[in-house]
Amino acid sequence: MFSRASRLNLASRTTRICARSPVNPNYSAVASKTRPKTILSGIQPTGIPHLGNYLGALANWVKLQNEASPEDRLLYSIVGWHALTLPQDPKTLRAARWEMLASLLAIGLDPKRSILFHQDHNPDHTELAWILNCLCPVGKLKRMTTWKSTQARLAASRNANDESEVDESLLNAGLFTYPILQAADILAYRATHVPVGEDQQQHLELSRDIAETFNRAFPKPKKIFPLPQRILTPSRRILSLRDPSSKMSKSSPDVQSRILLTDEFIQIQSKIRSAVTDSQPGVTFDPVNRPGVSNIINILATCTNEDPEKVAGLYASKGHAQLKSDTAEAVEALLQQPREEFRRLKEEKSYLDEIAKDGATRAKGISEVTMALVRLKTGLA
Amino acid sequence: MFSRASRLNLASRTTRICARSPVNPNYSAVASKTRPKTILSGIQPTGIPHLGNYLGALANWVKLQNEASPEDRLLYSIVGWHALTLPQDPKTLRAARWEMLASLLAIGLDPKRSILFHQDHNPDHTELAWILNCLCPVGKLKRMTTWKSTQARLAASRNANDESEVDESLLNAGLFTYPILQAADILAYRATHVPVGEDQQQHLELSRDIAETFNRAFPKPKKIFPLPQRILTPSRRILSLRDPSSKMSKSSPDVQSRILLTDEFIQIQSKIRSAVTDSQPGVTFDPVNRPGVSNIINILATCTNEDPEKVAGLYASKGHAQLKSDTAEAVEALLQQPREEFRRLKEEKSYLDEIAKDGATRAKGISEVTMALVRLKTGLA
Repeated sequence: MFSRASRLNLASRTTRICARSPVNPNYSAVASKTRPKTILSGIQPTGIPHLGNYLGALANWVKLQNEASPEDRLLYSIVGWHALTLPQDPKTLRAARWEMLASLLAIGLDPKRSILFHQDHNPDHTELAWILNCLCPVGKLKRMTTWKSTQARLAASRNANDESEVDESLLNAGLFTYPILQAADILAYRATHVPVGEDQQQHLELSRDIAETFNRAFPKPKKIFPLPQRILTPSRRILSLRDPSSKMSKSSPDVQSRILLTDEFIQIQSKIRSAVTDSQPGVTFDPVNRPGVSNIINILATCTNEDPEKVAGLYASKGHAQLKSDTAEAVEALLQQPREEFRRLKEEKSYLDEIAKDGATRAKGISEVTMALVRLKTGLA
Repeated sequence: MFSRASRLNLASRTTRICARSPVNPNYSAVASKTRPKTILSGIQPTGIPHLGNYLGALANWVKLQNEASPEDRLLYSIVGWHALTLPQDPKTLRAARWEMLASLLAIGLDPKRSILFHQDHNPDHTELAWILNCLCPVGKLKRMTTWKSTQARLAASRNANDESEVDESLLNAGLFTYPILQAADILAYRATHVPVGEDQQQHLELSRDIAETFNRAFPKPKKIFPLPQRILTPSRRILSLRDPSSKMSKSSPDVQSRILLTDEFIQIQSKIRSAVTDSQPGVTFDPVNRPGVSNIINILATCTNEDPEKVAGLYASKGHAQLKSDTAEAVEALLQQPREEFRRLKEEKSYLDEIAKDGATRAKGISEVTMALVRLKTGLA
């Protein structure tokens, strides 16, 4: 039903989300800087993350964890229910769920500090999603650019001249309503701050809208949902090593286009050495006209925590080969420890089970307070 | 957001549904008459049922219970989540949930024989609904006549000349997707037979469609969902006593238009005596030209388990007054015991709590077997 292009786009549909703990009984919907946060974010179970996932989103999760105040709460979720909006091979999905959990641990998320859990282990998400469905006009879902672009891809795959030639009837209802499930992912934990990329900002707006609608409908004795705010994180857009016009992606058929968290140094070297750049001599940072070479600069700069322009300056007279070789070294320095940790963890299935179970219990402990209030307010309890 | 007319129509949106127990390990999706059934049906928590609810649906529930084979399983659900698709007053809804449960017991449903439970006490319904959302094309939901009629009512309430003048954007996503939640209500218990009225037949077809889609997507080692079949029950359409052009309804502002399960004999007499009939002398059964008098005949015939034509024959020369007086007596004979039982039960809140809790536990015991299989098949476990 879906073109590879659509899967490509949706693989990047990382749900990145943040919440506040209801510590203060006089808690109001208005956020304040002095109150503790509860930071929550989600990622689809796409298996072992690639460098784009890592540098674009997951590295920020670790940063947020390490910089959080002691009273802040952090939840990181693997959103299996969102994955079902696209056709999945059950065996692959099953493996990918555990690979993603092992990866989160491998990159430095500490299960004692952050709550790591599978979304689909906590039924409060789908229960709240149903209730929020009843508060969200269909028109708001139709205006989501993700929905429009899914239609556009369908049109393209059918060689229609424009979007209006294909109707949305063939797309599943999960693709239409998943922004509401995302709102539930956030609101179940009463998020206050959500780290999102550009592509997810509209969904965060919808979550705020729905939270406001609920608060307005059930204001007494007090509003229960804070309006989740966006956290701006310094995420870098990492491009495909084979086609720098698109993002690095799990779904590209060309394995040379991406570097996985588990790649050995020799694979990293080979992939970066054969990365598509251009025939122009020298190194300059020009993402529009020289996307390939700029992507390599960007990777090196991100790995070494430098400014891309500055990195480009250092390599101005050194040529592509030296840049690529140094970039491979920098990526290796970044991935060596996570790779080894991943290998070790992947064999410890019972430990992973325990982490997932403990995470789900702790997540449920928070969301069930929200759900008790929601049921009371709506008249279901 | 909704007109009273829409609420009126939706109050009758009784979810009447039925399921087979997975006793045989070689259980297939093809129904067979020799295998035990699991009968499941649902009703919205609209409070104390009126005569239309009772004669139209609930009396059949009791009949199904009393005529079921010992190995058949019966589940009757109060579907609170469906009620949220329309704006609800939380206090009223809270009371209505318990009034409906007390009513089900009062009319003779035996909580030892039938599983009586609140839908919203079993999160498996919304979890399965999400998964089925991902298998149901948006186009199928758009073709539901309930959705089209909701749009039509919206158009009428805005004085638009035709439906196309208003778009559906203002309606909530719950109204759009509730047929999928209904499918989950049925499939969570792997229904084989569903007693539905005309207005719900299309929804049952959708449930069959979705079950087939799931079976086709995940056929191995065996298909898990039987295709739920319709049970034809001798339901009678009881009309408003004040306006025989519409069904008897909870939402009519005129309390004289309906008889409640808890009405005293004196109220029953008064309401039937003042029922709108016509100025034509004599009694004939002619629902099209004489809807008022035919409605009274229908009520009397249903209460005494007779054919309406035959009843009309008996009263041909007796006149409206005698017909109405005898009908009031027949309704009293039918409602006296449920009324007394309801009064008694309504004071026993802890007993009702216990019934609801026990019902939810038993329902969950069945649905969690289904959900374990669904999670395994989809790759979430």
